[in-house]
Amino acid sequence: MKTRAAVAFEKAKPLEIVEVDLEGPKAGEVMVEIKATGICHTDEFTRSGADPEGIFPVILGHEGAGIVVEVGPDVKSVAVGDHVIPLYTPECRECEYCLSRKTNLCQKIRATQGRGLMPDGTSRFSYKGETIYHYMGCSTFSNYTVLPEIAVAKIREDAPADKVCYVGCGVTTGIGAVVNTAKVESGANCVVFGLGGIGLNVIQGLRLVGASMIVGVDLNDDREKWGREFGMTHFVNPSKVGGDLVAHLVELTRGGADYTFECIGNTKVMRTALEACHKGWGQSIIIGVAGAGEEIATRPFQLVTGRVWKGSAFGGARGRTDVPKIVDMYMNGQIAIDPMITHTMKIEDINTGFDLMHRGESIRGVVVY
Amino acid sequence: MKTRAAVAFEKAKPLEIVEVDLEGPKAGEVMVEIKATGICHTDEFTRSGADPEGIFPVILGHEGAGIVVEVGPDVKSVAVGDHVIPLYTPECRECEYCLSRKTNLCQKIRATQGRGLMPDGTSRFSYKGETIYHYMGCSTFSNYTVLPEIAVAKIREDAPADKVCYVGCGVTTGIGAVVNTAKVESGANCVVFGLGGIGLNVIQGLRLVGASMIVGVDLNDDREKWGREFGMTHFVNPSKVGGDLVAHLVELTRGGADYTFECIGNTKVMRTALEACHKGWGQSIIIGVAGAGEEIATRPFQLVTGRVWKGSAFGGARGRTDVPKIVDMYMNGQIAIDPMITHTMKIEDINTGFDLMHRGESIRGVVVY
Repeated sequence: MKTRAAVAFEKAKPLEIVEVDLEGPKAGEVMVEIKATGICHTDEFTRSGADPEGIFPVILGHEGAGIVVEVGPDVKSVAVGDHVIPLYTPECRECEYCLSRKTNLCQKIRATQGRGLMPDGTSRFSYKGETIYHYMGCSTFSNYTVLPEIAVAKIREDAPADKVCYVGCGVTTGIGAVVNTAKVESGANCVVFGLGGIGLNVIQGLRLVGASMIVGVDLNDDREKWGREFGMTHFVNPSKVGGDLVAHLVELTRGGADYTFECIGNTKVMRTALEACHKGWGQSIIIGVAGAGEEIATRPFQLVTGRVWKGSAFGGARGRTDVPKIVDMYMNGQIAIDPMITHTMKIEDINTGFDLMHRGESIRGVVVY
Repeated sequence: MKTRAAVAFEKAKPLEIVEVDLEGPKAGEVMVEIKATGICHTDEFTRSGADPEGIFPVILGHEGAGIVVEVGPDVKSVAVGDHVIPLYTPECRECEYCLSRKTNLCQKIRATQGRGLMPDGTSRFSYKGETIYHYMGCSTFSNYTVLPEIAVAKIREDAPADKVCYVGCGVTTGIGAVVNTAKVESGANCVVFGLGGIGLNVIQGLRLVGASMIVGVDLNDDREKWGREFGMTHFVNPSKVGGDLVAHLVELTRGGADYTFECIGNTKVMRTALEACHKGWGQSIIIGVAGAGEEIATRPFQLVTGRVWKGSAFGGARGRTDVPKIVDMYMNGQIAIDPMITHTMKIEDINTGFDLMHRGESIRGVVVY
């Protein structure tokens, strides 16, 4: 069949809206009509050419919501008509990782996904006979896409796609880092570095679990109002702190933070985040993605005296199990998404969405098909 | 009163055996007759002058066992005749740290202890009218010493002092890192870097909790027999591995270790220990003390993909609560100490004990009074 898609034919070029060819789902696969998709910094990381593992031509997009329109042979867990969110971190429930009870990093289809292919080693997309690659196993910048059954989370039908698409990446990454990775307890003092989309979702995750002090750190004063809207209790602009930022944050949190979250991808900030933790028990969670080859460093004394250094990917969430619960939290009013969707556009305007993100004018741009 | 002690009058000089003056215990303090004391690398770190926080003249020693001979006013938790182990990490059970349930690093007397003094800001030791400082709040290289009540663990009376003195530091540090800090579960695959006293105690801690694979890593082949005696299942000499040590260990442990332990104090080995961990859940515990100012480094990707970097001090053990339990384990035959005590000597020969340690000929030298 044909479907309209935004294709990145070459790196560092604008996406082109064209009609591509899409093969139907093979065994264990489903076809999903994407209703809405967010535009995430990770898409831009690949589009721009900064991602050393980027493959072209490709259909980007990994933060979507849609409806199953066709299922391939042997598909058991979803059916035509089911509302779903595509998962760039799948959940097969049978690999060593899924069965470990210790991680969400299912490895079942990792090798083919990393090469832009379905599990059988081929692509379902093509354009004028040429292969177009899948992206993060999702390719939500196509109105219709094909995914492995283990890479879709079934969600409730009354959830609006133009909002819950954001659960496919940013919302889950932020809230999951709080509830799954750090397991923050009520009453905790926390510091969040970087008040972009991820940072704001960390902040509302902290509010959700009853953290007492939620300190937001950002160089941009305009972000303060955003932080406060989602539960931030204190704002620190490092450029306005006289003296050492770590010492300032340790004093503010009365001895150091119980938990800190790095939501930028800056390795120097990652060190600050660790060292702003409370002696004896403070945990620092790295969420941001650093540039290729960059390294973090600290004195081992920081760890020997009780601080813990961790990371979080997709919020430590098992997609099929946890994503539907986050959608429920949104529908119950426990978390907010609507105010974060700052721009909604048609697929034809997707390059504008990237521009807005570049200029820092959007928290989350969403394409509605 | 007078007591015989080994005094470090100046850094980098041999200890001198002299009769020093010892004041009786003040409020909340006890006097202990030390029956035996181990000689630890940390004592040597200070004696040699390498410790930037070393204070002289001082009575070193922090790994002892003895009997309470006098109690000061208001002492409630121990009485004359009680068998005790001095604690360089006290347990007041009322400071923020003790009450946190998250750390063993009681801070109640930290400031004065760091300055070589009792909690009231004075020393109990003097020699010819000159102040001699306490060391790590213990000073077990004196036949009699004074300690805060919160810095002694009451143990069973039938435990032999010349063996259980080692529980005062090395045994607890190693076993505690396994059971308190890492909380290793049965069936785990583990790697231990450095087969000195701490490494051997980590190994027997891993055997105690039922770890499946216990890999020991040391440049000295002579250590293999020591490791195997305490439960090591595989030995790796890095100088004999063709190629990358991390890759070798990841292959040996079928994907990476569930837990690794750095027992050397080498920051390069700390990195290797982290990176030899299993993706998704492997935890690396730093026990060794690095040189002043040295730093650890890695790519944040190691953490974002699920590895955790931690440290452990005094095995995460709360001294008054956990040390008696470790003594019980020894008395029950669950852990071994006797074979690790490779040299026993009188206080007059303590400098020989340091020499043996320097030459790598002792696992643990013990002075018996």
